[in-house]
Parts: sequence; C-alpha cells; structure tokens
Amino acid sequence: MKTENDSKKTRLRHLVLFKFNEGIDISIIREIEKRFALLKHEITLVKDLEWGTNISKEGLSNGFTHCFMLSFEDEKDRDAYIIHPKHQMFVAFIKAYLDKACVVDYWA
Amino acid sequence: MKTENDSKKTRLRHLVLFKFNEGIDISIIREIEKRFALLKHEITLVKDLEWGTNISKEGLSNGFTHCFMLSFEDEKDRDAYIIHPKHQMFVAFIKAYLDKACVVDYWA
Repeated sequence: MKTENDSKKTRLRHLVLFKFNEGIDISIIREIEKRFALLKHEITLVKDLEWGTNISKEGLSNGFTHCFMLSFEDEKDRDAYIIHPKHQMFVAFIKAYLDKACVVDYWA
Repeated sequence: MKTENDSKKTRLRHLVLFKFNEGIDISIIREIEKRFALLKHEITLVKDLEWGTNISKEGLSNGFTHCFMLSFEDEKDRDAYIIHPKHQMFVAFIKAYLDKACVVDYWA
C-alpha cells in the first residue's frame, strides 16, 4: 500500500531544534530568533523559513524550546546553506548560548 | 524590528521525532510509518501530515531517524488528536519499538 509520503517528495525540510543554556538572558534569545529569521533574507537558497516556540503539553520536548523549519529545493542548496558565510557567522554567534541542538533533514 | 514570525501564525505544527530501538526489524519500521501516515485519514482533525527519514549529514540528529510533521487548526484540535482512540492505539503499538521520541508543537 502506498502512503502519502510516496507521492510528494518535493521539498527538502531542514529542521533545527534549540535548547538554550539555563539562565540565558531573554534579550539574547530574541536576538537569536531575529538573526535566524533574517537568514532567510540573507541567503536566497532558503526557500521558506517558519519557526516558533514549543507549546506541547506532552512533556516530550527533550528540553527543546525553539523549532526552526527551513525548506530547500534540494540537497545541493542545503549543503551550500550550511557552509554559507552568513550561516557560519550565525552558528558562531549562537554556540555560546546553546545547551544542545537537534538537526533533522527530510524530503517532504 | 518585526520578523517573519510575527505575521503568520495560522498553523499549529506538531512535530514528532522517533529513534527506534536498535536491531528493530525493518518491517516493523515500515508498519509504523504506514500506520502514522494513516492517522491523517482516520482522524480528520489532522489538517496535514508530512514525514520523512533523516538525511542530514551534520551529525546533530540526536539519533532521531524519522520526522513526522502534523498540522492542526488550533490547540483544541491538537488536544483532541492526542486523546483520540486511533492515536492512542497507535501510541500503544509503537511504544515497544521506540528508544526515544521528541515532540515539539509550535505556531507557524
């Protein structure tokens, strides 16, 4: 039996979850949110970006509070995004504030 | 400064990541994928479901191999989905096969 998933593999999702260090200043979190959202405009390879903060009540978030969902045309664009100087600058900026991150990419 | 995120909060995303037990039979994984995809048809509260397997090369997946992204109209529908008998049956079925799960909900 075919499932939904077999028929529409047209977008490459790049999912990023953040758990920030304990005691981090809220202004830093706002700055990280802003800079991540800006990447969509600074790097045209990013076809879509949506993000939000966790509101699940199931207690299964593994401590992750922020979810950023980027979409790419293909793996080539995703790879170019990863090494893009603007993205690398962003990664360097957030490093000190992250307890942990989770990155999962999949074809949707 | 306003970011993208301020203007379009219209869909409630329900993100589910799975890491299966080591040595799990591939036929069980296929069955879980199929049953999860079927939930969209069995529970009309689910407005959209997309899923895929991790192809990130960054090594930050925290062991998660499967991502399922469900969309709901609102938190009321999401809550009704969580306790829906079909969903509960699915949860009962997969429990024995899961090493860990991660669930993050956010407004996109």
